[in-house]
Amino acid sequence: MPSKECRVELLAHTPEPLSLIYAAFRQCYHAGFAGDMWQRLVAGDIDRQKQADFISQVLESGHASPIEHVSFTFAVEGVSRALTHQLVRHRLASYSQQSQRYVDGSNFEYILPPAIARNQAARARFEAFMAEVGSAYRDLKQILEQDGRKGAKANEDARFVLPQAAESKIVLTMNCRVLLHFFEERCCSRAQWEIRHMADMMLERCRGALPVIFRHAGAKCVRLGYCPEGERFTCGRYPLRDAGRGQP
Amino acid sequence: MPSKECRVELLAHTPEPLSLIYAAFRQCYHAGFAGDMWQRLVAGDIDRQKQADFISQVLESGHASPIEHVSFTFAVEGVSRALTHQLVRHRLASYSQQSQRYVDGSNFEYILPPAIARNQAARARFEAFMAEVGSAYRDLKQILEQDGRKGAKANEDARFVLPQAAESKIVLTMNCRVLLHFFEERCCSRAQWEIRHMADMMLERCRGALPVIFRHAGAKCVRLGYCPEGERFTCGRYPLRDAGRGQP
Amino acid sequence: MPSKECRVELLAHTPEPLSLIYAAFRQCYHAGFAGDMWQRLVAGDIDRQKQADFISQVLESGHASPIEHVSFTFAVEGVSRALTHQLVRHRLASYSQQSQRYVDGSNFEYILPPAIARNQAARARFEAFMAEVGSAYRDLKQILEQDGRKGAKANEDARFVLPQAAESKIVLTMNCRVLLHFFEERCCSRAQWEIRHMADMMLERCRGALPVIFRHAGAKCVRLGYCPEGERFTCGRYPLRDAGRGQP
Amino acid sequence: MPSKECRVELLAHTPEPLSLIYAAFRQCYHAGFAGDMWQRLVAGDIDRQKQADFISQVLESGHASPIEHVSFTFAVEGVSRALTHQLVRHRLASYSQQSQRYVDGSNFEYILPPAIARNQAARARFEAFMAEVGSAYRDLKQILEQDGRKGAKANEDARFVLPQAAESKIVLTMNCRVLLHFFEERCCSRAQWEIRHMADMMLERCRGALPVIFRHAGAKCVRLGYCPEGERFTCGRYPLRDAGRGQP
Repeated sequence: MPSKECRVELLAHTPEPLSLIYAAFRQCYHAGFAGDMWQRLVAGDIDRQKQADFISQVLESGHASPIEHVSFTFAVEGVSRALTHQLVRHRLASYSQQSQRYVDGSNFEYILPPAIARNQAARARFEAFMAEVGSAYRDLKQILEQDGRKGAKANEDARFVLPQAAESKIVLTMNCRVLLHFFEERCCSRAQWEIRHMADMMLERCRGALPVIFRHAGAKCVRLGYCPEGERFTCGRYPLRDAGRGQP
Repeated sequence: MPSKECRVELLAHTPEPLSLIYAAFRQCYHAGFAGDMWQRLVAGDIDRQKQADFISQVLESGHASPIEHVSFTFAVEGVSRALTHQLVRHRLASYSQQSQRYVDGSNFEYILPPAIARNQAARARFEAFMAEVGSAYRDLKQILEQDGRKGAKANEDARFVLPQAAESKIVLTMNCRVLLHFFEERCCSRAQWEIRHMADMMLERCRGALPVIFRHAGAKCVRLGYCPEGERFTCGRYPLRDAGRGQP
Repeated sequence: MPSKECRVELLAHTPEPLSLIYAAFRQCYHAGFAGDMWQRLVAGDIDRQKQADFISQVLESGHASPIEHVSFTFAVEGVSRALTHQLVRHRLASYSQQSQRYVDGSNFEYILPPAIARNQAARARFEAFMAEVGSAYRDLKQILEQDGRKGAKANEDARFVLPQAAESKIVLTMNCRVLLHFFEERCCSRAQWEIRHMADMMLERCRGALPVIFRHAGAKCVRLGYCPEGERFTCGRYPLRDAGRGQP
Repeated sequence: MPSKECRVELLAHTPEPLSLIYAAFRQCYHAGFAGDMWQRLVAGDIDRQKQADFISQVLESGHASPIEHVSFTFAVEGVSRALTHQLVRHRLASYSQQSQRYVDGSNFEYILPPAIARNQAARARFEAFMAEVGSAYRDLKQILEQDGRKGAKANEDARFVLPQAAESKIVLTMNCRVLLHFFEERCCSRAQWEIRHMADMMLERCRGALPVIFRHAGAKCVRLGYCPEGERFTCGRYPLRDAGRGQP
């Protein structure tokens, strides 16, 4: 039962994302048909920089829904059940997660928090405990099976001893608008370290695939130019919003 | 202002949809990582028929969420505002629709209902009325512009005379699970004729791209093997559910 | 076919909304059980001002999801189909709208845009046109019925002549988090005048029922203290965001 | 650290739920305004049985969206993190869950699965292990605090040892349409025992408050009159769907 590192793989995204977003935006404002424009777009007849500039300008004015047409699908492993429980709270997304009923946990792997890894006493205590979890899981599974509960029926109850640290794997799909929101929340220093690390890795992949949308993505402060978290929670990277300004 | 026919263009769908759904399903039930399996899938190392069979079998057992990872984006023109008002009631989808504020309606096109087209008197009355609409729109727009309201500000109020028949164009994205539900509702003979026609055209495109999911899609009765609409509404294609059976 | 004014009735909201939101917030941060605290809350054992202060403070720090537990249901009449088509684009809500298939449109009412009402020539042209619509609807309905299409089957096609101005009635439910977003978008001077007017009326009802949440609600600028719409679109009520500040 | 039983408290539901659903349904099909009818409904001028019969009949015909206007809010305690991780996968709902960052876990309680409780050896192994978890949590928290990580910062990492069995408390809101779906999935014998038990308790509360909607709610088979789970998974309470029938 070794500890495990987070791995993020970009499995797929909607093809021709720049042109698809451009076509959708144009459909809103112009007399022509996106279905006709599409042929010219995929043939490369419309300058990509021009497309990107148009998108940036309309996004800036607050019209964001057309970026929903493009989705990204990731496979993630090396993350804890503590993380996935937070992750699936983002409701505008699709998830396929490894089941603790159908997949045996006898040799589960786990996530080792960096603050524990850095402290020798903490790390020793944590690793000894993880060995004890494995032993408890296998003992319970054996007793339950002797009791006549096989396979999923035994896993289903034995997994009650598995820790929040237990490693999970998950496939997830979010569209670009949801991703921007996800990064705003989860790339912030107030987010839990593990999901923040995963969000940063996802953002890097998104930036590579579709810079026009993700170049300036990140925690809320990156977009706003100030920190909205208040004096008590701010990390200091950006200035707080001046409380005195903006009265009408 | 001629009448216009419905046109449905499939702009894009998530690439490698069969394998992506297969990988997501497998992630739920197996110890391995979808991110590793993905390389073998796109290299063609896993038989496509085997993938399709696995998907069919798990879907049949009621586990549908992994098909959400695959989305389809359509561009549609030649549909009425009556249709789009119904369409956007499907909330688990993304829409980019041609604006009646930003696009001038002086030469709007319109949808001619088949039952009206077939009746000479109805058709003549309808077409004469549509000419009158155009005239009212242009008159009002001119007055409003003389009054100092330009462009979008004039369109915004002049469009109050545009009919439900007025042609619209829209880009829409739905994932496979939503599409199956959409077809259940809108390919049914109880659906309004226009949206049913559009749904049939969308289904045809989906079937071509991803038969494993859409081969047996359609109105609810196609999946259920009986008509759930009741005696009053059934079209008679499938038998009604026998009210007497199934008591525990 | 007279013109009609917008009317907004608050049919219902979740009971004890202040205490319900307080209990939900507390459940996140405290060891006790909301189910136990609830009895003390409805008995009035916890000061309402203290509840309101706690809610304001946590909301300020960016934690908004607990306000979703409280919903408001409105009945609205005297709004155009142009408005309802925009309204139902807000997907995190529930709608029950008067059907143009099941409700006869022979004596439809309509919405008269203020800019048209103020101009004598525009108003005369608009009202004459509306009379012509009614005539076209009745003629078509009669022909379709003579053709054997009765009731909903005749309405369904005759309504293709009904204008965007045609009056509609709708029941809608939104939770507080969605309402705040709705008001940000629709109380802004960039919103179409009709939906803005309806949003203002809804906001007034919400403020009366739950001031802690809605006291400072409204267009985005009210919350932000500046206008995010950019130089081209700003109405000038709040200053634009200073482009020069906030660089890290 | 004793084990803990599930408790479900109904905190609130939309007031006058029967009449609200009736008014919403009527708004779809009738010329009048729900806002006017509402006064007569709350005054008791319309027979409640007549309202219930109308609702049942329209629901039967497949029109379900008006029941979304009514929501139920529950507070639940005595459920495991294994359960809540499944629960929050239901995305059309609102959740406020006790945080393992802000609430100390030194004296966490836990859920004891019945199959383990019934077997003396399993129970002894399980309970001894839970004591060991508490010890590991407290040790790690102490070390982290000595390392300078206080409060939430220490809890956040110490909780990695907390088990799936760890008790959680959560406030949740679902509308009636979502609840019907939730019960279809979670009152089924294929659902995990713990969430099924909670769903049964929720259903009992819903039935008491709004029998017209929930009288016949439950697992899919209750509505369908047959079991859709297939030969491999059926519990036998209802007959399987006859594979041979229903061919057009």
